[in-house]
Amino acid sequence: VKENPGMNSPTVVAFPRQKQLEDPLAHLPCSTIYDYKKGQVIYGQDNPVDNIFLILSGKVKVSRIAANGRPIIIDVYRADEFFGESAFLGVDCRREVAVAAEPAQLMGWSSDEIERISLTRPKLAIGLMQLQAQRSEEFVQRIVGFSADTIGKRLGSALIRFAERLGWSLSDGSTEMSALTHQFLAEHVGTSREIVTHCMNQLRRQGYVRYSRKTIQVYVGPLKASLLEEV
Amino acid sequence: VKENPGMNSPTVVAFPRQKQLEDPLAHLPCSTIYDYKKGQVIYGQDNPVDNIFLILSGKVKVSRIAANGRPIIIDVYRADEFFGESAFLGVDCRREVAVAAEPAQLMGWSSDEIERISLTRPKLAIGLMQLQAQRSEEFVQRIVGFSADTIGKRLGSALIRFAERLGWSLSDGSTEMSALTHQFLAEHVGTSREIVTHCMNQLRRQGYVRYSRKTIQVYVGPLKASLLEEV
Repeated sequence: VKENPGMNSPTVVAFPRQKQLEDPLAHLPCSTIYDYKKGQVIYGQDNPVDNIFLILSGKVKVSRIAANGRPIIIDVYRADEFFGESAFLGVDCRREVAVAAEPAQLMGWSSDEIERISLTRPKLAIGLMQLQAQRSEEFVQRIVGFSADTIGKRLGSALIRFAERLGWSLSDGSTEMSALTHQFLAEHVGTSREIVTHCMNQLRRQGYVRYSRKTIQVYVGPLKASLLEEV
Repeated sequence: VKENPGMNSPTVVAFPRQKQLEDPLAHLPCSTIYDYKKGQVIYGQDNPVDNIFLILSGKVKVSRIAANGRPIIIDVYRADEFFGESAFLGVDCRREVAVAAEPAQLMGWSSDEIERISLTRPKLAIGLMQLQAQRSEEFVQRIVGFSADTIGKRLGSALIRFAERLGWSLSDGSTEMSALTHQFLAEHVGTSREIVTHCMNQLRRQGYVRYSRKTIQVYVGPLKASLLEEV
């Protein structure tokens, strides 16, 4: 037993270090493919499923319904991403709803299948564990945002994250993505549509975003810089 | 390729089903033991460590420091629980701080060790994956709370959760735990100490909690019922 290890025990490490994460996709055999139309429910209160899904194409919106009926958007997942990991817990998660945000092709495995495959391909479980750690990290950052940031800053962070995840670069240096409704953004940052509309107008006047009915363009660099200043 | 699977494909399952989760402890060999005094920093901005820790005895408080310097308490972990899982990502997490909330004895493994052990004991990785899924689920519930609940309700939920995790039963049906300061609760639910004091006084007048400098007693059943009504 080492007593009072102090500052240098356990070993202090230099960050960031390059860590090669496992890719769960490299270790998963093919499974049944499902097609969903835009707007179709994949799972929800009326059809809970015990599946972990991989998105082959399209986008999927995952939300929760709060006790007061208010929907909260957890995230939008895209091709090569997983969702439905609460299946690993085998608990009732009928409060989670997954909907195809655009036509989507999915592959699904039951949690039992994943665990059985992991016994012979442990790197699958290691990869999924790292993936879960990554999701946890993002959720923690969102909790920190809810505790410490203004709604404007939370909205700015959400726009940057969605642009970086779902968008494409334009020649003027902005990142464009399909339009997210103000209602969608409100359900993501936890406020009313009216407040999102107010904040979006402000961001537009300040030149950080441009938007139409079809697309949003985010000037990611300048918006990031302005959020750092806002501290 | 199955088209438009509709309501009954993938298989709809009946919840709750009993799912046996893997216990990572059953698959982890012993490692170095470290002793910490109350208040001692285990890792933080000045001493980042790439370790996953298991608590053998004592309690550990994990917080994040927001960009504006505000601390947010992520959780308090107790004996037989893990913390430090962001080590699995190998990224800079110097914003996370772990402090011994009381004298604590810990065992630590580097993320590389955990991954190496998992190759021969895949159930370790499966157990840690399930653990991460559980943590994610709790974080998501907290995000839902931030979006949909009043501060009073978030405080009530936090008291119930801490009492159930860290407390012991009393003969009058309440659950007692060591006192949590109003500042601690404020840093957990994301508000000011003054508002926590106001809400705690209200909960005390309503008979849901009693507290002194040393302990808090929570009447978990009645408090839960009142939070359900508050919808």
